[in-house]
Amino acid sequence: MRGAQALIRTLAASGVGVCFSNPGTSEMHFVASLDAVPQLRGVLCLFEGVATGAADGYGRMAGRPAATLLHLGPGLANGLANLHNARRAGTPLVNVVGDHATYHKRFDAPLESDIDSLARTVSRWVRRSARSADVAADAAEGVAAARGAPGGVATLILPADVSWSEGAQPAAPVPPRPPSLVPDPVIEDAAEVLRGGTDVLQGGPACVILLGGAALRRPGLDAASRIAAATGARLLGETFPARLERGAGLPGLERLAYLAEFAQAQLAGTQRLILAGARAPVSFFAYPDLPSSLGPDGCQVHTLAGADEDVCAALEALADRVAPGTRPQPQPAQRPALPGGGLTAETAAEVIGALLPEGAIVSDEANTSGLWLPAATAGAPRHDWLTLTGGAIGQGLPVATGAAVACPDRPVLALGSDGSAMYTIPALWTHAREQLDVTTVIFSNRRYAILDLELQRVGAVAGGDAARSLLDLSRPDLDFTALARGMGVPAARAASAGEFAGELARALAEPGPHLIEAVLSQPG
Amino acid sequence: MRGAQALIRTLAASGVGVCFSNPGTSEMHFVASLDAVPQLRGVLCLFEGVATGAADGYGRMAGRPAATLLHLGPGLANGLANLHNARRAGTPLVNVVGDHATYHKRFDAPLESDIDSLARTVSRWVRRSARSADVAADAAEGVAAARGAPGGVATLILPADVSWSEGAQPAAPVPPRPPSLVPDPVIEDAAEVLRGGTDVLQGGPACVILLGGAALRRPGLDAASRIAAATGARLLGETFPARLERGAGLPGLERLAYLAEFAQAQLAGTQRLILAGARAPVSFFAYPDLPSSLGPDGCQVHTLAGADEDVCAALEALADRVAPGTRPQPQPAQRPALPGGGLTAETAAEVIGALLPEGAIVSDEANTSGLWLPAATAGAPRHDWLTLTGGAIGQGLPVATGAAVACPDRPVLALGSDGSAMYTIPALWTHAREQLDVTTVIFSNRRYAILDLELQRVGAVAGGDAARSLLDLSRPDLDFTALARGMGVPAARAASAGEFAGELARALAEPGPHLIEAVLSQPG
Repeated sequence: MRGAQALIRTLAASGVGVCFSNPGTSEMHFVASLDAVPQLRGVLCLFEGVATGAADGYGRMAGRPAATLLHLGPGLANGLANLHNARRAGTPLVNVVGDHATYHKRFDAPLESDIDSLARTVSRWVRRSARSADVAADAAEGVAAARGAPGGVATLILPADVSWSEGAQPAAPVPPRPPSLVPDPVIEDAAEVLRGGTDVLQGGPACVILLGGAALRRPGLDAASRIAAATGARLLGETFPARLERGAGLPGLERLAYLAEFAQAQLAGTQRLILAGARAPVSFFAYPDLPSSLGPDGCQVHTLAGADEDVCAALEALADRVAPGTRPQPQPAQRPALPGGGLTAETAAEVIGALLPEGAIVSDEANTSGLWLPAATAGAPRHDWLTLTGGAIGQGLPVATGAAVACPDRPVLALGSDGSAMYTIPALWTHAREQLDVTTVIFSNRRYAILDLELQRVGAVAGGDAARSLLDLSRPDLDFTALARGMGVPAARAASAGEFAGELARALAEPGPHLIEAVLSQPG
Repeated sequence: MRGAQALIRTLAASGVGVCFSNPGTSEMHFVASLDAVPQLRGVLCLFEGVATGAADGYGRMAGRPAATLLHLGPGLANGLANLHNARRAGTPLVNVVGDHATYHKRFDAPLESDIDSLARTVSRWVRRSARSADVAADAAEGVAAARGAPGGVATLILPADVSWSEGAQPAAPVPPRPPSLVPDPVIEDAAEVLRGGTDVLQGGPACVILLGGAALRRPGLDAASRIAAATGARLLGETFPARLERGAGLPGLERLAYLAEFAQAQLAGTQRLILAGARAPVSFFAYPDLPSSLGPDGCQVHTLAGADEDVCAALEALADRVAPGTRPQPQPAQRPALPGGGLTAETAAEVIGALLPEGAIVSDEANTSGLWLPAATAGAPRHDWLTLTGGAIGQGLPVATGAAVACPDRPVLALGSDGSAMYTIPALWTHAREQLDVTTVIFSNRRYAILDLELQRVGAVAGGDAARSLLDLSRPDLDFTALARGMGVPAARAASAGEFAGELARALAEPGPHLIEAVLSQPG
């Protein structure tokens, strides 16, 4: 059979069920072959950043990779920012990047570019298939590379003639590398730290366990909660988790703050820091006169489990040592009352906390408007929280797209901001095309509000019009209800807490996509 | 002074007057410094692909570089596709890419990525400024590299601390490398070819001069026209020129076709091909059973001038040898009549040909809908035609943005298609913000129509729904009038030739941005 068909059959056999696609000429045989393999569903995206972000959201929720289909170097380039986020999230994901026919490359046709170099900046595995007889085995290895703990981006470059030539056969799936087990002495060391052994400083509350990666799912949270309850250690979650399970009945978890000053305050007095699936905390950006590393001077850092290790098993083994018989401490069910009055970042968060449905998936790119969300939703029914892992904005709507495709029976809430939503706004069209149950809320403050803040934080003084105009999203105001309707998504605007509650309740009650533009009266 | 301010003063002194900007935290000192240097105008773009495409359009029309301001690796990544187009266009352009502070990079904060590798894929010059004392000289060299013949992309990576630290001084401009003069023997060789000398085959019409790059401006066209008139050689233009001057009073020029089969037909019988600023013709994509190189077997290829040589001077010298006393053959003024009836790609082209104003700049990304445009506009008043040089779609609206900033007194017509316009649709907001005199026409056929065609051309058989759905832009239909209004651009829809003529005349008569969605009844 043709290379394209063997490739698609191998992807499907390896557990890849969806391909978020933005194809071009060099991918036409791949597209044509989809008809023969219904196990791989093609989902059209109108921009590659939507496709890669959707594959990220899918992988976070499904726990197995989606594929993307991208058109040569520029197509991959358009998807790179969300692949950067996926790389930081540790999401399993397989890119298929079409290229010119092998014999055509030396002619340097207009679309010729250095795909391999682009791919290596975000991928843990890059392969250029050389022959149609190889492409299926290449794909099986790529899926295994993507699925290997903790998950990552694999990129298969597919020359057009490798795709269209005969002589290929599907390949058997390749088993991915499982997470390594944490050695017993490392667990015992952590237990000693928690017991305040003789080789470390005293003081229970001065010990912090920083949870990240897979530790933010229920088994890890339960074990960590037992440890904290028994030892007095404090739990913190990494700032931008790929997927955090939370809500009533699960142990609650405070996350490390984004702003370095706040994170420093959270960590003040910490003498012993245990890393469980998280990296040592560093400032998101550097600032004049602030350190890059956020732990207090003299704080001892102990790594219980790295990203490629089985952090949940390690936390459970540790809990069995230091907290035998202790139960996890669940977050009680508790919602804010529906607020009245003006719509602010705070009242918007209360509305969301009051209405968040059971089993919701929240894709959070609310940025400055999201400050009150964690507290307001902590006691809502169980849900998953997906965040902007790599700082490349334009992730929220695409990640919601993929999460909704992965979990068609769960409501998805995409929380965006006017600034960041514009980067990948064509995601809304895919919400409509696939009739995904995504409610998109755009917090509209007519500013790159985070940059107002950052301008002050870096010590820059910007009194003038030239600088201010580059942070200003008014003149003209963006009308997100018009943008949504232009892509087939029903939309409404809310300018008070009551209006927002009414629109959100209506959107959540109806299946299919909706958008609410939440115009904030006190910009967050 | 701070590095940022010395950098900006140096850019301005080197002739860079505009910075298309999408800044983030690491660029805040650059932004703040704009207030002190009014010679460098910041233009906000809501997506980096708009900023880089606008800088391309600006550079093509102004003949000197604009700057872009981009936020770390993901910001550069979002701008890469249009930088690829700019690279193919030979456009002078200077990227300023902010990065983490030098001492912060080793902490691998979330936004850390391999900026240098990304930059090298599109840039002829990449420099990472190491100290604030160096940044001004680096910038001066970068501008010179961008301006050196034939123009190209220079990328300056600016660490945040280099930007914010004191100790910098502006640097003097560095003279760019001028185009090389073509040696006399090369011109004499070309003259011999045109005279049908004894060492080449006979036959005047079998000689083709392929014009590209700077040869597509008036001096080159006039000289080439004299040569053709005197020798019987045939003139063709490269398929996707960066900037083609055309219209009544200028020599007309047929362009080499995009589709390889058509280009082969145009070149059939050619025995001698003279390249004047153009590259040897190759197929845009490879296809089973079609050659990559488009010249007929046995065709002799002679290079008169390459991209870095002074092609206009070479053509003039050649004309003085083979066509002394011969005058250029101007295209007569001639417009189609305004058509009635349905709106098709053909009648839409006639409307544009009938109404195109004197001095217009056309940014052409009409793709399949643009087939009839060259003939319909050939005798319109003088105008410039800018095309999709690198095949990375999403260029048309941003290039129009930059062209309008470069030439505020000229009307700009952006011809887009529904598929390609979505990649960089936030360009419309900048049209509104800056009140640019851009009329955007979106040809809406509800398809990636070019892929319908390509699916057949590669020999792929796609009868099934799965494949067809990935080429289909309906379900839901995109409403470009709603999208435009959502970004502050007045918009109308036209579904007949008469409606289109009325809306286009109205839009061209009013200053400021407009959008017309041209719904084609016979998809082009």
